[in-house]
Amino acid sequence: MKRNPLVLVVACVLINKNCRILFAQRPKSKSMAGLWELPGGKIKLHEKPEETLIRELYEELGLVIRTKWITPFVFTSYAYDTFHLLMPLYVCRKFEGTPKPKEGQVLRWLSSDEFANYPMPAADLPLLPFLCKLLA
Amino acid sequence: MKRNPLVLVVACVLINKNCRILFAQRPKSKSMAGLWELPGGKIKLHEKPEETLIRELYEELGLVIRTKWITPFVFTSYAYDTFHLLMPLYVCRKFEGTPKPKEGQVLRWLSSDEFANYPMPAADLPLLPFLCKLLA
Repeated sequence: MKRNPLVLVVACVLINKNCRILFAQRPKSKSMAGLWELPGGKIKLHEKPEETLIRELYEELGLVIRTKWITPFVFTSYAYDTFHLLMPLYVCRKFEGTPKPKEGQVLRWLSSDEFANYPMPAADLPLLPFLCKLLA
Repeated sequence: MKRNPLVLVVACVLINKNCRILFAQRPKSKSMAGLWELPGGKIKLHEKPEETLIRELYEELGLVIRTKWITPFVFTSYAYDTFHLLMPLYVCRKFEGTPKPKEGQVLRWLSSDEFANYPMPAADLPLLPFLCKLLA
């Protein structure tokens, strides 16, 4: 039986005052290029999930968030061909700054009517009904 | 800055036909003895979260569950003194067998009126409102 590594990624539903969620399009240099995803990244050794999210949102978007502004929401668990993804998803409605694409990604704030039309990684698809409920 | 290890545990909200959730009291031989918790356990190297849950529910309770019977629900992230716990929580309403305490634990099916009175590990407390919603 093939034993793929477990990859631990945290991501964030960033919601703005207009009830839109921030999505980023993966740049050409990365795997799954062109697909739209929620911001976040891999948990490094000895990092807490909240620390990862604070670090990634600053590195990717220039945003400052704090642990007390994020809440556990749901998670996804998905078997890709070469790894198994486990991705806890936080919700964040408060942040400092305006998101800037610091890694060449394209950013877009999307409503629940809109994000259904954006191609996303397979692991993220089961999350969409949860996102719709959050905005309802 | 103290760098505690991240410990990855999966747990399960097992719900029976009477809308009660299964809790197990940690035996005296374990840390946090006497506290009541949801069944589950540590993810082993190269194990998928679903595989861990299937293995643990069989080892601890003699229950057979299948991947298609479990759904991602919520997660908890909590800084204990010596480790940081990240615990994805699944929901399972279908299982084969009757739970048996195979590791000396005490088992109890509890309603949302009841489980509020049972002492639980600190990391589990933020999950209780989610459990109440699930039974409502």
